Amino acid sequence: MDTISVELIGRRAKAAARQLGNVDATTKNDALRAIAGELRSDADAILAANEGDVADAQAAGLSDALIDRLRLTPARLEAIAADVEHVVLLDDPVGQRFDERILPNGLRIHKRRVPIGVVGVIYESRPNVTVDVASLCLKTGNAVILRGGKETTRSNAALVAAIRRALVAAGLPDDAVQVITDPSRDRVLELLRLDQYVDMIIPRGGAGLHQFCRENATIPVITGGIGVCHMFVDSTADLGKAVPVIHNAKVQRPSVCNALDTLLVERSVAPRLLPALATDLAAAGVELRADETALPHMTAAGERVVPATDGDWGTEFLSLVLSVKIVDGLDEALDHIWRFSTGHSDAILTQDPAAAARFVDEVDSAAVFVNASTRFNDGGQLGLGAEVAVSTQKLHARGPMALQELTTYKWIVEGEGHVRV
Amino acid sequence: MDTISVELIGRRAKAAARQLGNVDATTKNDALRAIAGELRSDADAILAANEGDVADAQAAGLSDALIDRLRLTPARLEAIAADVEHVVLLDDPVGQRFDERILPNGLRIHKRRVPIGVVGVIYESRPNVTVDVASLCLKTGNAVILRGGKETTRSNAALVAAIRRALVAAGLPDDAVQVITDPSRDRVLELLRLDQYVDMIIPRGGAGLHQFCRENATIPVITGGIGVCHMFVDSTADLGKAVPVIHNAKVQRPSVCNALDTLLVERSVAPRLLPALATDLAAAGVELRADETALPHMTAAGERVVPATDGDWGTEFLSLVLSVKIVDGLDEALDHIWRFSTGHSDAILTQDPAAAARFVDEVDSAAVFVNASTRFNDGGQLGLGAEVAVSTQKLHARGPMALQELTTYKWIVEGEGHVRV
Repeated sequence: MDTISVELIGRRAKAAARQLGNVDATTKNDALRAIAGELRSDADAILAANEGDVADAQAAGLSDALIDRLRLTPARLEAIAADVEHVVLLDDPVGQRFDERILPNGLRIHKRRVPIGVVGVIYESRPNVTVDVASLCLKTGNAVILRGGKETTRSNAALVAAIRRALVAAGLPDDAVQVITDPSRDRVLELLRLDQYVDMIIPRGGAGLHQFCRENATIPVITGGIGVCHMFVDSTADLGKAVPVIHNAKVQRPSVCNALDTLLVERSVAPRLLPALATDLAAAGVELRADETALPHMTAAGERVVPATDGDWGTEFLSLVLSVKIVDGLDEALDHIWRFSTGHSDAILTQDPAAAARFVDEVDSAAVFVNASTRFNDGGQLGLGAEVAVSTQKLHARGPMALQELTTYKWIVEGEGHVRV
Repeated sequence: MDTISVELIGRRAKAAARQLGNVDATTKNDALRAIAGELRSDADAILAANEGDVADAQAAGLSDALIDRLRLTPARLEAIAADVEHVVLLDDPVGQRFDERILPNGLRIHKRRVPIGVVGVIYESRPNVTVDVASLCLKTGNAVILRGGKETTRSNAALVAAIRRALVAAGLPDDAVQVITDPSRDRVLELLRLDQYVDMIIPRGGAGLHQFCRENATIPVITGGIGVCHMFVDSTADLGKAVPVIHNAKVQRPSVCNALDTLLVERSVAPRLLPALATDLAAAGVELRADETALPHMTAAGERVVPATDGDWGTEFLSLVLSVKIVDGLDEALDHIWRFSTGHSDAILTQDPAAAARFVDEVDSAAVFVNASTRFNDGGQLGLGAEVAVSTQKLHARGPMALQELTTYKWIVEGEGHVRV
């Protein structure tokens, strides 16, 4: 597909979307099963393509962490195929009828849930995203244009070839899933301005990618993925539970957007919470950046605790670093969060229902947690069965985006020759 | 407010939004009543300011139609005040709790409907939009930054001054409603890039304004307002009703986006429909641009019928012009609409349920009509009680946007020290 223009990819995607929009759930599920089958039967070729990408990445001196992300193994490929089969089991939201009513003039109106149309997804080096996004888009009747990282060009070409064969076998248009393999960044710019054909852009990557998309797209962009996450521990919090929850929010997977960045501690609880917390987190390898009031309570962390600087507030660390600040109470915590949160995931640990209620009312984030880890802001964890992105913008969808968030609706208005008066 | 920067307006709006987000419905309704009261008690000053705008517009040689749009009269101002009181009667969607459930691990989750935050609205010369948008945003707890046409600078300043006095009287922050009065287009560019403070941009105007916003904004833009609207009359249509519906769709208010632009007629029905239709529409002053097959059936329109050119398909006329094309049947009609529709409002007139079903399935527009005028694509007409814009994009909202579409949601997750496994 290298030789065709992004404009042509867009045109083909829109034509495929037209065909796909009214395909029934059974056919789409058959196609998903066929994709899982092709991924398995074509495993040798896919893994060989991936080995080529890995070899290039090693030759280019990419970090071990990056290489690990892009590496496919037989077990990982099988897990990807199994994930596609899992999508078969999810409910298809397309075709749902809602907001039905009859107006006083007799007009019968309702809304019907329909695919968005053509979705462009721009992501980085994980080849599993290629299959994951393609299967969720297919399930919801959307055509998708994929643009992965240049490190995964061969892997993505092999994966998409398998997917397209499965689509054809299932009687669906192969242009429902296309990939832009030309590594030039100009192709991304072209995709971002293809508003004639593309209905939504989902960037999956760091802050730079999101900003690049926002600034250059003429198509609606789902902004997300950037989480400066806070947790406030008030004086009534159950301290026996606080350390495990903070530990989980920071340590379980520090490289992701719903990991904790800043801990806010009510002054009166600091002497009871911070020594044990410092011991626990230091043992887990966390670097603690504490404000001057918190610092004396955290000496148990030894050299793992350092004084915080201004740059430690409002920073997404994406690593085993936690900033810690003492606040006078809920008001100061809310002010800090209002100022520094990116609106992703913020939490309170409290036994005071009034404090929990105020926190939930006043924190303006995609997900607000009471006595739970911020790590739950995830489509799978919140019971959606899947996730294509986590949105931190306010329009369309907020928080985890699953199948329903890959749909829109149309109004259907039925009359008997009705005219507007 | 002329002397403060757009950046400062944004910062103040965001601070006001924080206050406004949790104000109860009663307080917001009291503020709306106060606005209606201020508009009435300040009528002399508002009308005097408007007379200044009208005098300037006349001196600048603006068209009578434009001057009529910007002119306020005592009756029009009273109607605007009454509209604000009407908003009091609508249900406040903010605070609604939905998608509630308890996960197997005991986490209690639900979504709560909340204001979007700060809304920027860019519009042209109708001063009623100023009050309309401000009242709908206030009802939904959003702060709003208004940017009207330069012809209405004085009127808008007077209207917003009245609104802000009412907000203060009701105990709400006056910065919930601000207006950018500096006429430089640079201010619009600044507003479009204020993503730190503004959550949504709504352009209300022509295609050029929408494109300018899409191309320059780093904030999500609600695109809409451009309607190339089609109506397909198939061979089973009730012809006694067809002429009145087509007449209504074209003639009732030709200058708006849901007015009919292109009529598609199934070949076999043309000889029975088109002569009577031509007579009717010609009498109403409609210019008919007919393809060569339709033309012979429309001679009754005399000099009002002319041959269509390629430019007459896919054109939004916004005036008493209708293009007419003969098609072989539903397939050709669907192809034409797929190619030329802007996804606003498209209709079929048919007595065949299978044809109606296919049309509804396959036409990908915000509103699809069966045996009804396209003019019903309007928040008031579809029973929403109000309308801030009509969206033709796929994200967030499609078709008329009313109060609910001025809100988003947040996820609320409550546990007892839950950690992610």
